[in-house]
Amino acid sequence: MTPSAQAGSSTPTLAVVGGGQLARMMAQAAVGLGVPLRLLAEGEGVSAAQVVPDTTVGDYRDLETLREVARGCAVVTFDHEHVPPPHLEALAAEGHACRPGPSALVHAQDKGVMRARLDEIGVPSPRHAIVADPAAVSAFADSVGGFPVVLKTTRGGYDGKGVWVVGSPEEATDVFGLADDVATAGSRMLAEELVDFRRELSALVARSPSGQVAAYPVVESVQKDGICWEVTAPAPDLSESLALQAQQVAMRVAAELDVTGILAVEMFETRAGEVLVNELAMRPHNTGHWSIDGAVTSQFENHLRAVLDLPLGSPAPRQRWTVMVNILGGDHGRLSEDLYAAYPHTFARDPFLRVHLYGKDVKPGRKVGHVTAYGDDLDEVRERARHAAAWFRGDLGEESE
Amino acid sequence: MTPSAQAGSSTPTLAVVGGGQLARMMAQAAVGLGVPLRLLAEGEGVSAAQVVPDTTVGDYRDLETLREVARGCAVVTFDHEHVPPPHLEALAAEGHACRPGPSALVHAQDKGVMRARLDEIGVPSPRHAIVADPAAVSAFADSVGGFPVVLKTTRGGYDGKGVWVVGSPEEATDVFGLADDVATAGSRMLAEELVDFRRELSALVARSPSGQVAAYPVVESVQKDGICWEVTAPAPDLSESLALQAQQVAMRVAAELDVTGILAVEMFETRAGEVLVNELAMRPHNTGHWSIDGAVTSQFENHLRAVLDLPLGSPAPRQRWTVMVNILGGDHGRLSEDLYAAYPHTFARDPFLRVHLYGKDVKPGRKVGHVTAYGDDLDEVRERARHAAAWFRGDLGEESE
Repeated sequence: MTPSAQAGSSTPTLAVVGGGQLARMMAQAAVGLGVPLRLLAEGEGVSAAQVVPDTTVGDYRDLETLREVARGCAVVTFDHEHVPPPHLEALAAEGHACRPGPSALVHAQDKGVMRARLDEIGVPSPRHAIVADPAAVSAFADSVGGFPVVLKTTRGGYDGKGVWVVGSPEEATDVFGLADDVATAGSRMLAEELVDFRRELSALVARSPSGQVAAYPVVESVQKDGICWEVTAPAPDLSESLALQAQQVAMRVAAELDVTGILAVEMFETRAGEVLVNELAMRPHNTGHWSIDGAVTSQFENHLRAVLDLPLGSPAPRQRWTVMVNILGGDHGRLSEDLYAAYPHTFARDPFLRVHLYGKDVKPGRKVGHVTAYGDDLDEVRERARHAAAWFRGDLGEESE
Repeated sequence: MTPSAQAGSSTPTLAVVGGGQLARMMAQAAVGLGVPLRLLAEGEGVSAAQVVPDTTVGDYRDLETLREVARGCAVVTFDHEHVPPPHLEALAAEGHACRPGPSALVHAQDKGVMRARLDEIGVPSPRHAIVADPAAVSAFADSVGGFPVVLKTTRGGYDGKGVWVVGSPEEATDVFGLADDVATAGSRMLAEELVDFRRELSALVARSPSGQVAAYPVVESVQKDGICWEVTAPAPDLSESLALQAQQVAMRVAAELDVTGILAVEMFETRAGEVLVNELAMRPHNTGHWSIDGAVTSQFENHLRAVLDLPLGSPAPRQRWTVMVNILGGDHGRLSEDLYAAYPHTFARDPFLRVHLYGKDVKPGRKVGHVTAYGDDLDEVRERARHAAAWFRGDLGEESE
């Protein structure tokens, strides 16, 4: 395997760990940059493996596998945050730059570590405590005005899994019984106040090892059942000062935690007009998918440019409004299983629609693609994106056999 | 090899013959559409083969190889126009839709056939004649006001090869001696008047088997030594009526010749304010590369949508001006061989710049990438694109070892 597709060139090969849709969309951006990727995929034919010839199928928890994939690659980056930090330390010691690095990634791997670090640097979060048992949950609830409170496993949760709202000491006890199904090794239980938020915001930044930062416009995200459903860029009716504050929080976190690549900071906008950090992700993020069609430089290209320490591209939006709606696997008969069958209607109805399918089998609730619409009139843009996503899901349209 | 990446889906696999940069950029668009490609490449590691896992290396002139690649693919499309028509007829007879089909492609393969057909449907071309020998060239020259005239091999020419401007009967005799180096089987010699043109225009349309057509804005193209150098979209100072006429010519040719996919019609705008058809290409075309970053739907995505008979995307431009400049291999030392080394300067200077590298080895005059700039001020947009392309070529910048 040659490290570069172009003879006489300094072009690096970039190792990407994880074969999901984020790696797939990184691969699409890498085609334009002329940067070859080497992929470590979880299985044959997973989303990114369909579009990256140089793919190894193997287990990211196995150091030898990681070493094999990283061989000849100066830089290693990630589709997810699950690679064990000791393995990343080993790769780093052997001369591979891991971006983001293990000391940054631990904050995306462990919500307890993340909360402690945000406290340390003075970035506001919901009130929280590590709780060892149901009694500690009740004590925490007392300190924040009573139940309900939120319980989270510090490790292993995703897309709403590993997060519970509990209304009583009894429910807290039940959750302690459930948590083992989600939590991974070293996980603790984190209690948080249930924030009475106006909405959820997300601030994305790309940061390079040299310290350059590009801050995307702050977006509004709507979640259903803990899964990202719809994103509007920029967040409507967001005051300039709060937008700036959200961007500054993201830049601050990126710098303090030495994040390289994309950092997504999910926040609550409270009814009191504050922003509280909810979650961190250190990779391209669902709340940044709008940028493929809506921004000058997509989050995927800027992730690649950042981890390769190339100057970043402009994160500026290309038009007034962009709305992204996820295509989640539905449970509505033939149409919802056959995404391709949604093209004739959705494309004919809206020649300006942008569609991204991930090559994944459709299962209820699974992220299998997204649609993007953009334009000057937010209501119209939203209607177009929502209609298309609903058609792909099978919530609209023919129910024929 | 499964025909679809998504279980329970009607997603077709699309066969693409030819592994150059056009197939590479089709592959990039196919990632978003979720359509798997199967590629027939000329060699290991060629431009598109770097980004398409399902690649067969083989000879497109071999029918068995074509059959193997087409197996399980309902539709076959092309990176170039060189597949022998009898092979395409055979594939079609075996149930593979070739798009464009052999009866259309012959007009892009043979300039003599093309000129005769354009005459038949009344589409204006430069005056022309098939010439069997140098004496016939002199007779043709007499009929159009004397030398110089243009001589072209009807088959086998590309990027300025197979085209000569001859100023005398002696030069015509020389060209008849040279032509065998370029011409392919069945080639004849075509004489054309040397048009006193104001500039070159290009009109691109995407056309589907169902007959839907999307017409891109007419662009101005600048050639150097017969190779596309710079494209401005839309063509500046083009009257609305001439733009419409150029689009109508392209739509007419697409319909009459039953072209499916992208058709590029290169034209001369004469000083008298007419458009004369120069060349046809039945595939995504260099004069349409601006559309990746500059239009709602790129020519590559619309080529795929057209050959799959999906509704076409809007070809509308996303801003006032888009300028694309080719990166041609230079001959200027280290920098010009190492395209990646041009990133720090070009990206830092212009965060809005779009760059597309093709993963090809740099050779003088070879198309190895392109850059695109867009914005409201044409002079500024042009300067940005030209500067970046010059830097990649090595015509600017450090000449360090």
